[in-house]
Amino acid sequence: MILITGGIKSGKSTFALKKALEYKKRAFLATGVPFDGEMKARIQKHKEERGNLFDTYEEPLHVVDILEKVDGQYDVVLFECLTTYIGNLYYYELNIMEFIDKLVDKIASMKSEVIVVTNEVGWGIVPENKLARQYAETLGKTNTKLSNIADEVYLVVAGIGVRIK
Amino acid sequence: MILITGGIKSGKSTFALKKALEYKKRAFLATGVPFDGEMKARIQKHKEERGNLFDTYEEPLHVVDILEKVDGQYDVVLFECLTTYIGNLYYYELNIMEFIDKLVDKIASMKSEVIVVTNEVGWGIVPENKLARQYAETLGKTNTKLSNIADEVYLVVAGIGVRIK
Amino acid sequence: MILITGGIKSGKSTFALKKALEYKKRAFLATGVPFDGEMKARIQKHKEERGNLFDTYEEPLHVVDILEKVDGQYDVVLFECLTTYIGNLYYYELNIMEFIDKLVDKIASMKSEVIVVTNEVGWGIVPENKLARQYAETLGKTNTKLSNIADEVYLVVAGIGVRIK
Repeated sequence: MILITGGIKSGKSTFALKKALEYKKRAFLATGVPFDGEMKARIQKHKEERGNLFDTYEEPLHVVDILEKVDGQYDVVLFECLTTYIGNLYYYELNIMEFIDKLVDKIASMKSEVIVVTNEVGWGIVPENKLARQYAETLGKTNTKLSNIADEVYLVVAGIGVRIK
Repeated sequence: MILITGGIKSGKSTFALKKALEYKKRAFLATGVPFDGEMKARIQKHKEERGNLFDTYEEPLHVVDILEKVDGQYDVVLFECLTTYIGNLYYYELNIMEFIDKLVDKIASMKSEVIVVTNEVGWGIVPENKLARQYAETLGKTNTKLSNIADEVYLVVAGIGVRIK
Repeated sequence: MILITGGIKSGKSTFALKKALEYKKRAFLATGVPFDGEMKARIQKHKEERGNLFDTYEEPLHVVDILEKVDGQYDVVLFECLTTYIGNLYYYELNIMEFIDKLVDKIASMKSEVIVVTNEVGWGIVPENKLARQYAETLGKTNTKLSNIADEVYLVVAGIGVRIK
């Protein structure tokens, strides 16, 4: 699998799209839920960028079921993104580490190549908000778990994908 | 052109100064406006660090005019920095993307070498403040635009300039 | 000396532990003070991870005295971490730069190998809170000072230690 991480608007999604286009049969697993207008606009923009280059699957929570369903049918599954997915788990107050461990296990055993887009959110002043702090820690830990099973890891800075594994 | 990015107090400015001193005729384009005492002290400190090694031009908004004026007259123009420049555009509520696109176009066509100092601000928890969020996105996008036309890009971490392009 | 930096939950501590285990006689200098339950849990977790692989010294402020005491008696001293140490200096309203300069001088002259764990906290939106801003600047400057005297510097991203010096 391939892990792609970086800050806000660092060019991660564009880099991930380009990577995915190297494969022939492509699925896109979208985890974003249009909670508000800002999110809606972002999702719409992403959709237009992809055009019909991918079969799109939208699922905010039960992503493992989707991965199971599509595994082997596609050359690549682009998972966009871990950041919103973990946000969704917090929003619905689910057992987060259980969901994450299942996701990591599933990804590790997939026949299709999986590209996961995630975020770096822990390089600022530790937030005073406890939930934000826990979220940052959970995302950080999950990034490390995925990086451990990844064949390639890229840190995207100013649109440049720096390969770090 | 050369793009230099990194976090707060990562040593970007010192690294940029050193880079600029490799050139003979040097201009410094300062975008900082001394809004408060903290900013005034920072600008003063930067001035002392530069001494008389540069001809200094101060301009918070119409930087393209300055770049036009100095182009070809200097071997290098050190632009310090994009972070405050975009902050100024927000402060005066100008048409930000129009200003930025003009700046990127101008830099792309300059005869003098241009060194742009910018910041990474999108590696923390997404700020709740909408303006801060938009600012982070705008700066991120602009960094990518400049990185696309850059010959060299450095990410400065703990004083070390890591070349990533 | 070896400097190890990165974001929250990036895997810095685990990477640092692994580095330290390459040496035979090991001391661990813990600067964390269990201010609250969250901090207490974190310290406890770190202790369990280390087991009895290290002799542990706990000191929130007068770390130079400890370094003096242990110097030469151990092959490696793992200093965990600069982030909480500088936080402690702020908390007790001490003369921060004086403490830091003494620390940097001491580390520079040590016979034992020293591994310092620190954090990147300046890659987000500049915090509105003045103290947080000053803290981020102080930590950034200190990271650069230590990086200047370091033989090796690692930036840890998603568990991967990227050597940058």
